[in-house]
Amino acid sequence: MIKTRQLFDQETWTFTYLLFDDESKEAIFIDPVLEQMERDLSLIDRLNLKLIAVLETHVHADHVTSANEIRKITGVKVYYGSKSGIDCADVLLDDGDHVKIGNEFIIAIHTPGHTVGCTTYLVDNKLFTGDTLFIGGTGRTDFQGGSANSTYESCRKKLFTLPDDTLIYPAHNYKGLTISTVGEERKWNPNVGDGITKEKFIENEKNKNRPYPHRFDIAVPANMECGSDSPNK
Amino acid sequence: MIKTRQLFDQETWTFTYLLFDDESKEAIFIDPVLEQMERDLSLIDRLNLKLIAVLETHVHADHVTSANEIRKITGVKVYYGSKSGIDCADVLLDDGDHVKIGNEFIIAIHTPGHTVGCTTYLVDNKLFTGDTLFIGGTGRTDFQGGSANSTYESCRKKLFTLPDDTLIYPAHNYKGLTISTVGEERKWNPNVGDGITKEKFIENEKNKNRPYPHRFDIAVPANMECGSDSPNK
Repeated sequence: MIKTRQLFDQETWTFTYLLFDDESKEAIFIDPVLEQMERDLSLIDRLNLKLIAVLETHVHADHVTSANEIRKITGVKVYYGSKSGIDCADVLLDDGDHVKIGNEFIIAIHTPGHTVGCTTYLVDNKLFTGDTLFIGGTGRTDFQGGSANSTYESCRKKLFTLPDDTLIYPAHNYKGLTISTVGEERKWNPNVGDGITKEKFIENEKNKNRPYPHRFDIAVPANMECGSDSPNK
Repeated sequence: MIKTRQLFDQETWTFTYLLFDDESKEAIFIDPVLEQMERDLSLIDRLNLKLIAVLETHVHADHVTSANEIRKITGVKVYYGSKSGIDCADVLLDDGDHVKIGNEFIIAIHTPGHTVGCTTYLVDNKLFTGDTLFIGGTGRTDFQGGSANSTYESCRKKLFTLPDDTLIYPAHNYKGLTISTVGEERKWNPNVGDGITKEKFIENEKNKNRPYPHRFDIAVPANMECGSDSPNK
C-alpha cells in the first residue's frame, strides 16, 4: 500500500500530495507549490525517501508549481496529462497510462472539464482529483478549455463508477475538509451528485459568475513552463 | 478499523478529528471548534453517523470548543482528562481509561506538560496528541500548569515508546503538514527527539519568549465551561 501525506498551502488553499512506498522508498509529489518547495524537499529528506517524479493534475491557475525547480534540483521527471498542451513535461500521460512507484502503479485517468488536459491519478483506493472533483464541488469550467459537459462526463462516467469507498483527495478545499469518498460525492455533491442531470449541470455552470482568478496572469504562463524560478533565488 | 477525518480551522490553525465506525455508525469528535460547529454537524448528517461523544485533549487557550453547544444540541457526553481541573465535563478520564466506539476502544493517556490535564487519545495505530506533541514541535509549557519536565516525560516515556509506525495527529500545525509518526518524531523532533536530554529540553523551554496568546483571555474562561454559546445565536 502506497502511503500518502497531505500537505497544505495556506496562501492558496492548495493540497499537495506526497506518495511514497515504504519498502523501495520511492516517492512522488502531486501538485507541489513553489513557495512550499523547501518544506516539501525537507520532508523527502526526513523520511529518507528517493523522489522519482512530479505529477501535475493540470496547468494550475491559482498557484505556481515547483515542478520545474524540483526537476532542476533533483533531476526527476515531470509528468502531465497528454492533453494539457504544454511543452515542458518530460512525460505526457494518456488516459490509462501508468507511473510505477515501488511495485505499484499510479494510473492516469483523463478527466477533462476544469481544463482540457485535467488528469486524475488513481493508486490503490485513492483518487487524486485535482480541480476536477472537489469535496462538495467541482472546478470552474470557464477558462483553459474548460467544459461543463466534459466535467459532468468525467465525474459521472470515470470517477463515480469506481467503488464507493474510494478515497478522494482534491487539490483544494476552502472549508477545512480534507478527504471524501466516491460514495459521498456521488450521493451528496451538490454540483454533480445523483439527481443532477447533465443539462442542469451545464445550465448551473453557465449561470456562475465566478471572479477572475487573481493569480491567473502569473500562474498560467509560469505553469505552461512547468513553473518559474524559486522566489527565494 | 476506526475511520478518521481530519478537519481544519483556518482561523486558529486547529485540527479537529472526526472518528467513526462504519458498522455501528458511532462517531466521536476530538477538539471541535465553536466556529466550525455547523460544518462538523453537517458532516455527521452527511455520513449518516450517530455522534456519541466529544473528547477534549485539554482546556484550549487558542480557540473556543463547541463541546458545550454540541452537547446541548445532541445530548452527547463531553469527556476531558481527569486532571484538567474543570467541572463542566460529563466524564473525567483517568490515565488508561477508555471510551468505546463500535467494538473498539479509545484509550486516554495522561500526557501532562502543555497543561497539567493534557490527554492523548489512542485508537488502533493512531495517536491524537493535542498540544502535547506536534509535528516537529511540542506545546508551550509556560501557563495552565505547564511543565517542561512533564512534557519531556510524556513524550519520551508515554508516546515515543509506542511502535514507530503509530500515526500522530496533532491539534495544530502551522506549516501545512498534517500527520507524522512516532518514529519520525522520536528521531527528528527538534524539541524532544533523540539526543535532547531532559535538562536541555527544560533549559530550551525556559529560554523561549513566547508571545501571550491573543485569544487566551477569551478561550480559557470559555473552555473552563466546556465552551461558550454559539456566535451564530
